[in-house]
Amino acid sequence: MRHDQRQHNELRPVTITPDFVKHPEGSVLIEFGDTKVICNASIEDRVPPFMRGQGKGWITAEYAMLPRATEQRNIRESSKGKVSGRTMEIQRLIGRALRSVVDLNQIGERTVWVDCDVIQADGGTRTASITGAFVAVVLAFDKLLQAKTIKKMPVTDFLAAISVGIASNGTELLDLNYQEDSEASVDMNVVMTGAGEFIEIQGTGEEATFTINQLQTMLDLADVGMRQLNATQKSILGKLADQVGETKKAKEDTP
Amino acid sequence: MRHDQRQHNELRPVTITPDFVKHPEGSVLIEFGDTKVICNASIEDRVPPFMRGQGKGWITAEYAMLPRATEQRNIRESSKGKVSGRTMEIQRLIGRALRSVVDLNQIGERTVWVDCDVIQADGGTRTASITGAFVAVVLAFDKLLQAKTIKKMPVTDFLAAISVGIASNGTELLDLNYQEDSEASVDMNVVMTGAGEFIEIQGTGEEATFTINQLQTMLDLADVGMRQLNATQKSILGKLADQVGETKKAKEDTP
Amino acid sequence: MRHDQRQHNELRPVTITPDFVKHPEGSVLIEFGDTKVICNASIEDRVPPFMRGQGKGWITAEYAMLPRATEQRNIRESSKGKVSGRTMEIQRLIGRALRSVVDLNQIGERTVWVDCDVIQADGGTRTASITGAFVAVVLAFDKLLQAKTIKKMPVTDFLAAISVGIASNGTELLDLNYQEDSEASVDMNVVMTGAGEFIEIQGTGEEATFTINQLQTMLDLADVGMRQLNATQKSILGKLADQVGETKKAKEDTP
Amino acid sequence: MRHDQRQHNELRPVTITPDFVKHPEGSVLIEFGDTKVICNASIEDRVPPFMRGQGKGWITAEYAMLPRATEQRNIRESSKGKVSGRTMEIQRLIGRALRSVVDLNQIGERTVWVDCDVIQADGGTRTASITGAFVAVVLAFDKLLQAKTIKKMPVTDFLAAISVGIASNGTELLDLNYQEDSEASVDMNVVMTGAGEFIEIQGTGEEATFTINQLQTMLDLADVGMRQLNATQKSILGKLADQVGETKKAKEDTP
Amino acid sequence: MRHDQRQHNELRPVTITPDFVKHPEGSVLIEFGDTKVICNASIEDRVPPFMRGQGKGWITAEYAMLPRATEQRNIRESSKGKVSGRTMEIQRLIGRALRSVVDLNQIGERTVWVDCDVIQADGGTRTASITGAFVAVVLAFDKLLQAKTIKKMPVTDFLAAISVGIASNGTELLDLNYQEDSEASVDMNVVMTGAGEFIEIQGTGEEATFTINQLQTMLDLADVGMRQLNATQKSILGKLADQVGETKKAKEDTP
Amino acid sequence: MRHDQRQHNELRPVTITPDFVKHPEGSVLIEFGDTKVICNASIEDRVPPFMRGQGKGWITAEYAMLPRATEQRNIRESSKGKVSGRTMEIQRLIGRALRSVVDLNQIGERTVWVDCDVIQADGGTRTASITGAFVAVVLAFDKLLQAKTIKKMPVTDFLAAISVGIASNGTELLDLNYQEDSEASVDMNVVMTGAGEFIEIQGTGEEATFTINQLQTMLDLADVGMRQLNATQKSILGKLADQVGETKKAKEDTP
Repeated sequence: MRHDQRQHNELRPVTITPDFVKHPEGSVLIEFGDTKVICNASIEDRVPPFMRGQGKGWITAEYAMLPRATEQRNIRESSKGKVSGRTMEIQRLIGRALRSVVDLNQIGERTVWVDCDVIQADGGTRTASITGAFVAVVLAFDKLLQAKTIKKMPVTDFLAAISVGIASNGTELLDLNYQEDSEASVDMNVVMTGAGEFIEIQGTGEEATFTINQLQTMLDLADVGMRQLNATQKSILGKLADQVGETKKAKEDTP
Repeated sequence: MRHDQRQHNELRPVTITPDFVKHPEGSVLIEFGDTKVICNASIEDRVPPFMRGQGKGWITAEYAMLPRATEQRNIRESSKGKVSGRTMEIQRLIGRALRSVVDLNQIGERTVWVDCDVIQADGGTRTASITGAFVAVVLAFDKLLQAKTIKKMPVTDFLAAISVGIASNGTELLDLNYQEDSEASVDMNVVMTGAGEFIEIQGTGEEATFTINQLQTMLDLADVGMRQLNATQKSILGKLADQVGETKKAKEDTP
Repeated sequence: MRHDQRQHNELRPVTITPDFVKHPEGSVLIEFGDTKVICNASIEDRVPPFMRGQGKGWITAEYAMLPRATEQRNIRESSKGKVSGRTMEIQRLIGRALRSVVDLNQIGERTVWVDCDVIQADGGTRTASITGAFVAVVLAFDKLLQAKTIKKMPVTDFLAAISVGIASNGTELLDLNYQEDSEASVDMNVVMTGAGEFIEIQGTGEEATFTINQLQTMLDLADVGMRQLNATQKSILGKLADQVGETKKAKEDTP
Repeated sequence: MRHDQRQHNELRPVTITPDFVKHPEGSVLIEFGDTKVICNASIEDRVPPFMRGQGKGWITAEYAMLPRATEQRNIRESSKGKVSGRTMEIQRLIGRALRSVVDLNQIGERTVWVDCDVIQADGGTRTASITGAFVAVVLAFDKLLQAKTIKKMPVTDFLAAISVGIASNGTELLDLNYQEDSEASVDMNVVMTGAGEFIEIQGTGEEATFTINQLQTMLDLADVGMRQLNATQKSILGKLADQVGETKKAKEDTP
Repeated sequence: MRHDQRQHNELRPVTITPDFVKHPEGSVLIEFGDTKVICNASIEDRVPPFMRGQGKGWITAEYAMLPRATEQRNIRESSKGKVSGRTMEIQRLIGRALRSVVDLNQIGERTVWVDCDVIQADGGTRTASITGAFVAVVLAFDKLLQAKTIKKMPVTDFLAAISVGIASNGTELLDLNYQEDSEASVDMNVVMTGAGEFIEIQGTGEEATFTINQLQTMLDLADVGMRQLNATQKSILGKLADQVGETKKAKEDTP
Repeated sequence: MRHDQRQHNELRPVTITPDFVKHPEGSVLIEFGDTKVICNASIEDRVPPFMRGQGKGWITAEYAMLPRATEQRNIRESSKGKVSGRTMEIQRLIGRALRSVVDLNQIGERTVWVDCDVIQADGGTRTASITGAFVAVVLAFDKLLQAKTIKKMPVTDFLAAISVGIASNGTELLDLNYQEDSEASVDMNVVMTGAGEFIEIQGTGEEATFTINQLQTMLDLADVGMRQLNATQKSILGKLADQVGETKKAKEDTP
């Protein structure tokens, strides 16, 4: 039994509130238990310099925490004048993950800016960010579709992320909260598609190691969590969910 | 009649949601119409170097906007590596305003960090920030009172802020939203105490001027708004509201 | 009686030395008692990116102090690698003030850079900066007129600034020096046109408040100071003074 | 067959030159084919602030490339004034990896600074850095042992890292060079102990995904490479190699 | 004959105005023709960390130009957020020069901050800075002497600096103004003591070279200039001039 | 006799290893005793903004040390976020020196980036950098010649640099190592052409002075060292050495 009475293979309650902020093309508030992240997707009608003239788009992500999202107040990165290594790692991860399920050729020379701002943190902020950002991006593309700026939903598959790990007593756990994460000997973030394939695996044993069998057990747990996250995403997207993956099928059907 | 059907002397709907984020000692979400600001107050058990050894406390504020709080996405100040002049002006204003109604001698060598993070902007973000931050600070001091860290509520009076201005047609307006603010010829922010005295007046005519009579009309409007804001703050604070000002009275009563 | 034997409504001696530095298009040294500021106006034949293509000009200001302008040496902002909040507030104020009396449409796509460098500080550096910068800007435009780059003096009215405040004994004072400013309970900067209208009012009670009556008294004092400052500016500008405001009159005369 | 005639499960030639630079406590030049990295380990007699007073040590890593380590010249991070996200990710990885095989309690309040400077890059710079840094750290601890500053070699196991990936034709490859890395659909870095357990797995499919079976094949390849890297490290360390892991055994033997 | 009618071995008019700014312990305005530099010396009662506990003092210099000291306006280094290489070179040069004629053991653990701020530039700003800074430093030490903080003038010799160079027509020149400096093929700055010895020689042939004979001629010119600069310094210092060098003599007299 | 048994006019062993790194157009490792510097020359097909449209090229240099090139580890300048004054001075010196022996009109609008990275430091890093960079630049131009991008070797003369100084016992020394440099009373860097003319002289007496006779002795020593350095450079360049200076001769031959 876990501190919060969950089974080892049980997610915290997950809720996604769409259209949370009014200005962005796509916006959700995602909650994984007490972890709360605002995910906003903005469309800009140009791409960064290194992409120009190729006729395709780009997706980039930024991640931040409010200073008091955490138990102790953190100094703002704007006050420090630089972004921490941890922040950069997370925003690179979110960007890579989203780019892997979007056909960038379909969106023209546009950039999707994804902002994940953690307003309350209790572990799993990067996996909640990816899971919520996926929904925000689909909502944003829907705006482009409705404006007939693009012709098809350019999203080729579902995408979600979840953390797994090994507690100090050796138990593998799904969706670690902050306390569990602090005490875990191994921490792993898994990003998967709706089809059950891996986009990213990042497993770390800080002052600890893990075996191939433990890896297998953790990946199985991740798979369980992923199905539930995909279901939640689909229920929020409603009819839009059916458009996800059409691009891929269309491509595969081309003789 | 204004774009949103308000009278010239009418505030937008104001709501304050206390305990919005769980970690800070004091936390509220304040809404002035579509302007939404999370105001968190954190207590740190030390003061900045220039204050050490004086036995008194300090209050400082930071202000930021989520990149997509606005119609167009803004570049994060952490990415730019520096804080803009506008941001600095606002956070200095919030800090000064709060310090003017707190008896810093009562709180010992502690710093109150006030974070005002705008998640959605529609004009009046600095006045909403001050008005919400006041409530967050009172809630934070209540934590210290309950923990018997301090003996009395050190807040000497109520505090709120509101914008007034002059529309391009010459009408004086209360609580300008973004569209009104963009079109206004004069913009003024007024910070007042519950006793109806001024803490700060900042009036600016960008490419315009104003007369002493117009100034008087704007200050009258501000007074109207202030009474309503104080009432809303009191209804949220409930019994705590009665403790505000006791410090001052106690001081005045000392023969 | 004040420390320096002035009446409460008396300015310090004000002197303006034109053509103080040889390279700038307009240059003055302004002195408010022991406060000495070099104000240089430079003309650049382009505008910042956000203004391009509109056919109008821009005025921007920078403000700095020599490290030993003050009693204690200050660290240079170039060494710290960032500009303080106070500096930004002041340079934004100077820029806004100047833009409000210049018809930017008359100067084409040009930027006027106004540099206010305090070489000796004794209170009132921002008001001396605005008052001196006005003269430097008129001198710079005169260069453009003489070179037939522009056709008319684009300055629509006189402009000056002065500080007022309330001493700890409750007396309202005009033109506070450093010692008075440190001891004052209320500090207010007022920027006015030659026509006696307000461009900017910034009044602050750090750890103090002020009433509407005190505000009125301070504004009256400001008005007294302003007339003297305008007179000094006029005596320095000589015949050029007559050209100020012609643009405005011309506009108003257009049927 | 690969561009450079290697089998899919074949490492590039690996050489480690000890004592490459004279000042550091430990120093090696490591080469993975054309990738060349100077790994220096320095001992400092204090720990960072967050570790003070705990009686244990810390290991931190910095990674950089000479501007012309690559085909195209890169701008120095010192000229840009900030460290890129990629650099931060790599140095965090190197630090974590080394800390997982060092008993930090054994080294007292000391910091080991590990500098990995790439002088020529051809893919696999982070895995070469970890593999070489391990040797440099053992050499540095040997200096402390010889000076009788510490009593035992505090390194609990061998440590090396290697890249694996999936080529665009679907073949899994060991130790990708730059060209292979640019063309690969999946890229994975694996850090393992001498005992064959994982310390870190980072697998990424940029615009691609991978299945559990492909993951298994890549991990098998990594295991093959790791054994060879451990053998090379042992041959360089000579008798010192026998001291690695003694700490761990001692701990386990404690009843 | 030179552009400004000077002989090849003739200085521009040199004037030194003592006590130019009121707050610093030592302050002068120095003019070499149209080059005008404010040199302020400030005494701080502590030394930088690397000097602590040695019982001796330190002298450090900072150099800056007002943005419009030059024909074209320069961007402020505080706005750019970094100090240019040229600025750093000059401030290191000024600091080294001054330290070479001050007995740092005589001044206790104090730092002399020398600020050289160029308000108008016409070539030779660094040599004017050194020559003026010397006087400011002597004045500052006199304050310490009068306050009996130190016992003797710690300045061991006179110090001045002058530029020499070779014009494009091959003529060696003394004290180049801006136009001459831009056209010169060789530019050399010489810092000398009152005793006629060298403290620093920095000669540069940008896209040109110079022979040993040309070097000799330039050093002879420098010697001519130096005598005049020393004379000017002495006339400003008056009786204080006699105290310069006493420390040295005292040392030499010690058997 | 010196610490390392050298005569006062004796260089340390000098070796130059060409083609040390594979990617740059020109690359050498230069060693002055224990001082080791990698000098890479890169050709970029454009010039900096201030040079555009003039049809000529530019040479710029960057200099850095690995953190543990020195006895004590140095903080990376990329971590500090700024380049030190010493670094800037050195890279400006290297750039100026190289530009003085290259006919920039011959290379078209190209920039030569010279990177001097010190991997081990024992005094004389800037002089080794210049001496090695010269060879790297000739090798890089040879690449352009072979590719027929340019028609002639644009290098007009040989170039090398050496340090000289005065030991605390008054002896003039050639090529000071780190220990000698720390103890020297005068330190001078001399940059000369193959024809024996000076490009740059930088002599500094930190807390000491030097006479014209001592200067003469030091310049004689420099001349001795220079001849040996030129000989070493020639032996490495082989036939390429003959092409150096042809541009100059061609120019001089033009009637």
